[in-house]
Amino acid sequence: MSETVAEIGEFPMIERFTRHFAATEAVELGPGDDAAVVAAPDGRIVACTDMLIEGNHFRRDWCSAADVGHRAAAVNFADVAAMGARPTALLAAVSAPRDTPAEWLDGLASGLAAEAATVGAAVIGGDTTRGPQLTVTVTALGDLAGRRPITRSGARPGDTLALAGRVGWAAAGLHVLSRGFRSPGTLVAAYRRPEPPYAAGPEAALMGASAMIDVSDGLLADLGHLAEASGVAVDVETAAFDVPEPMANAAEALGAESLTWLLAGGEDHALAAAFPPGVILPQGWRRIGTVGEGAGVTVDGRSWTGPAGWDHFEKRREKTQ
Amino acid sequence: MSETVAEIGEFPMIERFTRHFAATEAVELGPGDDAAVVAAPDGRIVACTDMLIEGNHFRRDWCSAADVGHRAAAVNFADVAAMGARPTALLAAVSAPRDTPAEWLDGLASGLAAEAATVGAAVIGGDTTRGPQLTVTVTALGDLAGRRPITRSGARPGDTLALAGRVGWAAAGLHVLSRGFRSPGTLVAAYRRPEPPYAAGPEAALMGASAMIDVSDGLLADLGHLAEASGVAVDVETAAFDVPEPMANAAEALGAESLTWLLAGGEDHALAAAFPPGVILPQGWRRIGTVGEGAGVTVDGRSWTGPAGWDHFEKRREKTQ
Repeated sequence: MSETVAEIGEFPMIERFTRHFAATEAVELGPGDDAAVVAAPDGRIVACTDMLIEGNHFRRDWCSAADVGHRAAAVNFADVAAMGARPTALLAAVSAPRDTPAEWLDGLASGLAAEAATVGAAVIGGDTTRGPQLTVTVTALGDLAGRRPITRSGARPGDTLALAGRVGWAAAGLHVLSRGFRSPGTLVAAYRRPEPPYAAGPEAALMGASAMIDVSDGLLADLGHLAEASGVAVDVETAAFDVPEPMANAAEALGAESLTWLLAGGEDHALAAAFPPGVILPQGWRRIGTVGEGAGVTVDGRSWTGPAGWDHFEKRREKTQ
Repeated sequence: MSETVAEIGEFPMIERFTRHFAATEAVELGPGDDAAVVAAPDGRIVACTDMLIEGNHFRRDWCSAADVGHRAAAVNFADVAAMGARPTALLAAVSAPRDTPAEWLDGLASGLAAEAATVGAAVIGGDTTRGPQLTVTVTALGDLAGRRPITRSGARPGDTLALAGRVGWAAAGLHVLSRGFRSPGTLVAAYRRPEPPYAAGPEAALMGASAMIDVSDGLLADLGHLAEASGVAVDVETAAFDVPEPMANAAEALGAESLTWLLAGGEDHALAAAFPPGVILPQGWRRIGTVGEGAGVTVDGRSWTGPAGWDHFEKRREKTQ
């Protein structure tokens, strides 16, 4: 039997947890002191925080500890990328019941560290405490390299709407898992470990994107946030979306709608952006619609009547609990 | 009846929560986008994160929502100050059960904002999500103004051990509350809203402190961390501690030991530091002992046999549950 976190004790557990984290050149002081010190070469820092809670955001029978670590880092790094910044560091605060196997926290730490490594960021702070439910709060930091941040509010009528990264894969994978299946593996893997197109954020900023947002709640829901913040209307063209083969197969097998996964499925952490007319889209970005006068989100010029996204205090659609 | 967070919904609740937060000059972009942007004039950023969980770190019948907000901010700002840095910003991620009154989150946000205001920092990010237990994770950021960070590991034999701020007050206040009393009010208030000596951190750094730590777990426990990290022994002289009158009264009434509160009581978030020989202690600091060769912590040259501090995965001593 694996030792539990209670058997190990708080301070040895924190030490064991933070042992997974390697420094980068940007790290002046890593985990283990009262606070960490990391370079902010731009003279400004981009920062965001997001909490994952067992039962609400993940299930231990559907995701490994490393998967949860990857995901907790990814959702935050995607937010940093959505500002046009490069992630540099993360801090993780974890609460765990006393009977949690210490190996689970090892897996979590290894996932956090591995996802950070994919973007060249360091895990600079880790904290573990006792709590009734597994909870992972990650804070990510990032650097703008002298550029202005790309907010949600800069889209203008006439802009091109574009997307980088995948949509619908995580929702399809979650649907598969929720029906008790484990395949298609590509969909399940997409749910377990989203792969946000991190580099596409700074590239969009360099090419002059007028607005950008991380697609975490679902494409239509998040475009709704962008439209509202910018005071514009956006229209999504379904012709821009191919249904990948595993998604088509899963939809048929489960009696589900691929288009709903694509347009309303969250948790892939794609990036959506608006680009001024005439901008050639950077690599990795594809046109998915237009920005116009008005308000709200339409699909092929019409209202969307399906589910649009996710509200964490309600249960509008199928979720992990 | 107050509305609950579920009745309000996630996005309106986040908006309502973040409405409490005023910007400072350092804030380029506050809450409401994918991430915030704040100045890091030093070209480095100090960062730490800490989680407070209902039942483990606070009780709603003992602390108001604003108290919890003050405390969640204070524990993190004290960590920033313990590096010799000035707090500049914080981010707060909150999980709350669906039936939590929205007013409670209002109170929490107002406490976070008020504590941030005391140090000139801004709340730059806020997130709320559903979870089984009230959980508040705060990440604090700070600026070193060109100075090196003061770690736990720089104390050397011959250094003077010094303290800024109060110790024992919060532990005494918690003891009072746990026995069902509400007075002495000064002790209870000290537990509910610690008042860390924030300015003493940068001042100690300016005066050449060799090591510093935030006293969160108890003076002896935290000095133990400092001694271990520095590879030294520290001795605390009890003659340096006066027992304040309300503490003496409470100890007598409750049959408790003031010295245990002073030496082993946590959560006041005093700062403890080592200063090289010959340094004149900055204002607000007082000598409490010496640093010597060896390892471990002694009290008046002898081993301490009482409780030393707190382990969040065990229940070594009386706590909020």
